[in-house]
Amino acid sequence: MLIAGDWGSSNMRLHLCRVEEGRLIPVETVRGKGAKDVSDHETAFRAAAGDWIDRHGPMPVLLSGMIGSTIGWREAAYLPCPAGPEAMAGALLRFEAAGCPIAIVPGLSCRNIFGQPDVMRGEEVQLFGWLAGVADDDAERLICLPGTHAKWARTQGRTVLDFVTSMQGEMRELLLAYGLLGRSLAKPYDPAAPTDIAAFDVGAGLVVDDPTLAIEHGLFALRSRILMGELTSDAAPSFLSGLMIGAEVRDAVAAHRARGMAVETIVLVGAELLVDLYGRVCDRLGIAIEKAAGDGTALAGLSAIAARMEAATA
Amino acid sequence: MLIAGDWGSSNMRLHLCRVEEGRLIPVETVRGKGAKDVSDHETAFRAAAGDWIDRHGPMPVLLSGMIGSTIGWREAAYLPCPAGPEAMAGALLRFEAAGCPIAIVPGLSCRNIFGQPDVMRGEEVQLFGWLAGVADDDAERLICLPGTHAKWARTQGRTVLDFVTSMQGEMRELLLAYGLLGRSLAKPYDPAAPTDIAAFDVGAGLVVDDPTLAIEHGLFALRSRILMGELTSDAAPSFLSGLMIGAEVRDAVAAHRARGMAVETIVLVGAELLVDLYGRVCDRLGIAIEKAAGDGTALAGLSAIAARMEAATA
Repeated sequence: MLIAGDWGSSNMRLHLCRVEEGRLIPVETVRGKGAKDVSDHETAFRAAAGDWIDRHGPMPVLLSGMIGSTIGWREAAYLPCPAGPEAMAGALLRFEAAGCPIAIVPGLSCRNIFGQPDVMRGEEVQLFGWLAGVADDDAERLICLPGTHAKWARTQGRTVLDFVTSMQGEMRELLLAYGLLGRSLAKPYDPAAPTDIAAFDVGAGLVVDDPTLAIEHGLFALRSRILMGELTSDAAPSFLSGLMIGAEVRDAVAAHRARGMAVETIVLVGAELLVDLYGRVCDRLGIAIEKAAGDGTALAGLSAIAARMEAATA
Repeated sequence: MLIAGDWGSSNMRLHLCRVEEGRLIPVETVRGKGAKDVSDHETAFRAAAGDWIDRHGPMPVLLSGMIGSTIGWREAAYLPCPAGPEAMAGALLRFEAAGCPIAIVPGLSCRNIFGQPDVMRGEEVQLFGWLAGVADDDAERLICLPGTHAKWARTQGRTVLDFVTSMQGEMRELLLAYGLLGRSLAKPYDPAAPTDIAAFDVGAGLVVDDPTLAIEHGLFALRSRILMGELTSDAAPSFLSGLMIGAEVRDAVAAHRARGMAVETIVLVGAELLVDLYGRVCDRLGIAIEKAAGDGTALAGLSAIAARMEAATA
């Protein structure tokens, strides 16, 4: 048996797994507090996994996410790109706790396509999870993991070459929660409200059809359209999603193409609702998509790392 | 005598003026609460200007800013572009209060260069003020008024053709006050801290040198540079200013050039510190600048409108 899990800033999710032909098969799952909400991570781990250890004895533990950061249990230094699952298995931060050998997956760092330093911590297991299913050849891919801080990774075979982080998701939340655009709505912004697809498409269409419409010059359209009676307050957050996701995808594609990548297909890994919205923009840009749910890929990534860990220690 | 003033959301500033050859010469100035902080605007006006009216008798009053909005005294409908000071003088919202004829300057509306509705309220007097000093010919200009919601206006002679609003300034404040980038700093963000010009130039250089570096993909560089030890926390807000003002100016220039405007010079109207930063980006882009302080231009604009008002009522 093996314990594998994501332990992020806000949530902990641990799986008790059987190991079958190098794959982790979750048998039981527990949830707990995120790394930032816990002062003693060892105690929190024992509280969550102690019962499993009592029943099955000490076993290897493999954790990913912010648990390996400065706000986590112990800090695992970022592994520089290019990097694949072998390099990751060799760079695990290892120590012992609760009688078990613990391994924490380091995040990845790189110089992104703009020459800037960039980092991820947690998303790398989703990337390796999706890549575990592809041929380990020379094929280059562009993989997007939508989210508050979306990651756009260039990969070759099962190796992550580099990636760039988009802050579009956080910007949108801030604009609606604290800014003029939020105050332009008839009632406070509800992040859980369903997307108005027609309004999303109008916003996305504007930026896709006009490559010169940069996000900072486009956002005010939400307010002026409401003032002019051209947009309802209820539809406005979806219009904004269209504008902002539209710009994120359009600009990511343009930047990668400017560096010689063809970008005929984009792989979208993440929560279904968000992946669908990103997919709509790709459609408009004439780009094919491959979709994968985020949850399964994280465990697949931990499997890929665990398999190489076992090999390394065998 | 005439009372002229800006009465914005957050601040009221009224001037008692002598009228000399059609120009308003301020003799005394009072300040007061902004339109959003006042429940009875007539009482607030009497409290501010009552002494002048007692001493000099009833006189015309000309007000601009959010006082003419839904949160103001009375709502003045936006005047559609193209519009010059004559059209503005003819579109004033007029009523009587405190025994004086009151005139409120309407804001301007337009379809901007991206085909979107856009609005301004308050900035139009600064625009007309600066334009009062140029020849009333066919020359086209690009005028930028930096600020929380910066305006980029295309003008011809003394007429405003259209304008587009950038939300860059507000986005930056939100990111630093409420977002991950603010939490990446060693101490809370201080908007009054002086700009680190070297750090500003690094940020501006990145976006000016790479037209494919869109703002949503560039902002995370602040966090990763701090993590990698490539940027100090103290210099980070200035680096962010460089990235964001750099992108705003670069993208505004590109969008106007894509529509056939040469953009060899940009006129910058506003507060000196901000105008200087915008000017540094223009220099990098090889674009000449003309600078004007915002304060004087607002009164000049009210003068230009008052002159036509008097002519209209003479």
